Amino acid sequence: MDLLLHHYWRSSSSWRVRWALAIKEIEYRSNAIDLLSGTQASDAFKKESPMGQVPCLVVDGRPLSESVAILEWLEETHPTPPLLPRDPWLRARARQLVEMINAGTQPLQNLVVLKEVSHLLHDKGAAKPWAQKWIARGLSAFERELEMLEREGVSGPHALGASITLPELFLVPQLYNARRQEIDLAPYPRALAVEAAALDTPAAKASHPDRFQPAHPAG
Amino acid sequence: MDLLLHHYWRSSSSWRVRWALAIKEIEYRSNAIDLLSGTQASDAFKKESPMGQVPCLVVDGRPLSESVAILEWLEETHPTPPLLPRDPWLRARARQLVEMINAGTQPLQNLVVLKEVSHLLHDKGAAKPWAQKWIARGLSAFERELEMLEREGVSGPHALGASITLPELFLVPQLYNARRQEIDLAPYPRALAVEAAALDTPAAKASHPDRFQPAHPAG
Repeated sequence: MDLLLHHYWRSSSSWRVRWALAIKEIEYRSNAIDLLSGTQASDAFKKESPMGQVPCLVVDGRPLSESVAILEWLEETHPTPPLLPRDPWLRARARQLVEMINAGTQPLQNLVVLKEVSHLLHDKGAAKPWAQKWIARGLSAFERELEMLEREGVSGPHALGASITLPELFLVPQLYNARRQEIDLAPYPRALAVEAAALDTPAAKASHPDRFQPAHPAG
Repeated sequence: MDLLLHHYWRSSSSWRVRWALAIKEIEYRSNAIDLLSGTQASDAFKKESPMGQVPCLVVDGRPLSESVAILEWLEETHPTPPLLPRDPWLRARARQLVEMINAGTQPLQNLVVLKEVSHLLHDKGAAKPWAQKWIARGLSAFERELEMLEREGVSGPHALGASITLPELFLVPQLYNARRQEIDLAPYPRALAVEAAALDTPAAKASHPDRFQPAHPAG
């Protein structure tokens, strides 16, 4: 099977997929897309990724975008090691955490939305408080859910127990963005503990944005 | 199994879950949450739904929110009739369509975001063009993906063939919102055909917002 990943070093959604590929030890070819150049909005790229977004995983020439769709496909076709618990209820809780970031947080603070906010308000500085507001809302919900899991007896070091599952792949890149937006992370001690445990693994390090940063980044 | 669904008649994410419950003929108790009253943001409700959002499905007293997590759980625990294709690649394509709406569209046009846009721009009228922009972007991507599936030989009447799968449960409520925002839908003929086929089914009708509208709606 030939896998080609279109991704951008600093895109949080790209990191999710690089990370899963690293955990599952799946070989792939890598194609860096520079989101700042606007390539992703071209008609040519939209033929592969209809939203004009990264990540986009091309499987034997057939493109698939949306990180959740890619990750669920990887889980179904390369089940070992698993990235979802076996118990149906815990799988549901994992996907709840995933969507708190995937749908509840990331879309409101991605590059194209921040640009639109700055544009509408005629103020480049308006993007940061906007991003801060929605990221804080998402992290608060994530923290509340981790607290709930803790009360139910789920113990760490990872969000759902002894091994990394999909929630970490969404939380950690979102915290990376949160720091770029200078958000106070003190209110999220459980999320930070989950992040620390996750970052201390070879696959997290191998897929980290810093490792994919171009030598002369455009921005 | 005791199921209680917290939902709001006009919430597109709520309709997705009501619809799946209807297709799978699963009995549930219904609790209407009036999003306009702000109940969903209370600490009491956030103990059930950490994002303070509907839908929230309470299973034997244990709450689960995020429509994608609820729908995947329903699919795993009540697999008949299926709402995802059997083939892994088509399942992935289904989830790609789902996330184009779930993450790529709906979050940018929900009530709390529209309120924030109006607030920041000191203009109640600013919400509509904002919503129109992001809904049009999402529907364009969905249409492009339907066209791609058509070229690959997937035939209707539904998005992925002969039966309704998850993508319809996201597309149709999003089109309902699109009409509320007075969006020109002419550029999306494939999406409209999929919508027409889906609406012409008993489960779509049984779960339709109009059926759950309060006698004296607050707004």
